[in-house]
Amino acid sequence: MRKIVVLVSGGGTNLQALIDSISDGRINGRIVRVISSKPGVYALERAKSADIACSVVCRADYRSIEEYSDAIANEVENSGGDLVVMAGFLSILSQNFTRRFENAVINVHPSLVPAFCGAGYYGIKVHEAVLEYGAKITGATVHFVNEQCDGGPIILQKSIEVRHDDTPQSLQLRVMTECEHPLLVQAVGLFCQGRIEICGRKTVIV
Amino acid sequence: MRKIVVLVSGGGTNLQALIDSISDGRINGRIVRVISSKPGVYALERAKSADIACSVVCRADYRSIEEYSDAIANEVENSGGDLVVMAGFLSILSQNFTRRFENAVINVHPSLVPAFCGAGYYGIKVHEAVLEYGAKITGATVHFVNEQCDGGPIILQKSIEVRHDDTPQSLQLRVMTECEHPLLVQAVGLFCQGRIEICGRKTVIV
Repeated sequence: MRKIVVLVSGGGTNLQALIDSISDGRINGRIVRVISSKPGVYALERAKSADIACSVVCRADYRSIEEYSDAIANEVENSGGDLVVMAGFLSILSQNFTRRFENAVINVHPSLVPAFCGAGYYGIKVHEAVLEYGAKITGATVHFVNEQCDGGPIILQKSIEVRHDDTPQSLQLRVMTECEHPLLVQAVGLFCQGRIEICGRKTVIV
Repeated sequence: MRKIVVLVSGGGTNLQALIDSISDGRINGRIVRVISSKPGVYALERAKSADIACSVVCRADYRSIEEYSDAIANEVENSGGDLVVMAGFLSILSQNFTRRFENAVINVHPSLVPAFCGAGYYGIKVHEAVLEYGAKITGATVHFVNEQCDGGPIILQKSIEVRHDDTPQSLQLRVMTECEHPLLVQAVGLFCQGRIEICGRKTVIV
């Protein structure tokens, strides 16, 4: 059974989707640790309620992205984790980190990559950009993390329609519930079954 | 009733979708002229079969994009056209052209703009890029044409899933039939009903 470490920074709705899917048998894995980049976030409460071990590793306590990433990597290894899920984790990790866990770090991004992704596109800013551009379709992307920001091999994508009266907040909520949560659960489930093959930039579900 | 000029360069399947939709009453408009950038293309046969006047205005006969665009613009005005539809038209037109027919030139692009659009992304190249990138969702975009390549206000978008065994050709065919044709028919229909409002970069269907 796969041992999953989940990285969080906020409310933890993606974490909750994973916890629920494990408990109802849709994911054949176990969350061995939740690591938060911030203290006091609700994701930590969710982890405690599910009896999952937690750590807080604050970015501000480290001098560089490299040192911070090494601290997170050590936490992952000490937990015996063999899959890292970035579930709304807002800190950037080093190239060293992604090389150390090559093809074993999954991120969810709230747009249809390569649209509205890369540096500067995170959280609510993504949905603000979608609305400013006047796009009529958006969605979410679950992908492996490599050294390129939001640029690793795509595992799954799902689209939804933008409504004419959407605000960044209403769009964020719909993308989370209708795209991010089901995609992340599906992708982690496939990973734990060993069903994701990577070939260059492409993934194939076998 | 709106008078439509359709610009073509090839097989004319988007043109055919428009012809069919006008004849069955889904579009309250009339195609007054088809202008091709190439002689001998099948789109011209389709126009003749539907008793639509045709012109061939070859890019090679003009020294610059500006002169070429002015020639096309004169054809449009002589036809009394008040909507220009670029239906697989592969030549670039000048900024003068788009300013002369502001908010009255509609283009269909075979991807979900802003992904896989801009200079170099046309025809089959778009679908090659989608597959190389490993995207799992693609689609088409119908938009007003302004001075930015594929950058004008978006009217409608529609998405489809990329299949693991897609070739650029199979993907192009599905995007055409499942996205481009229905979107173009719907957008031209809405335009002819006066139901598309433009507000900055955004459009609203009223």
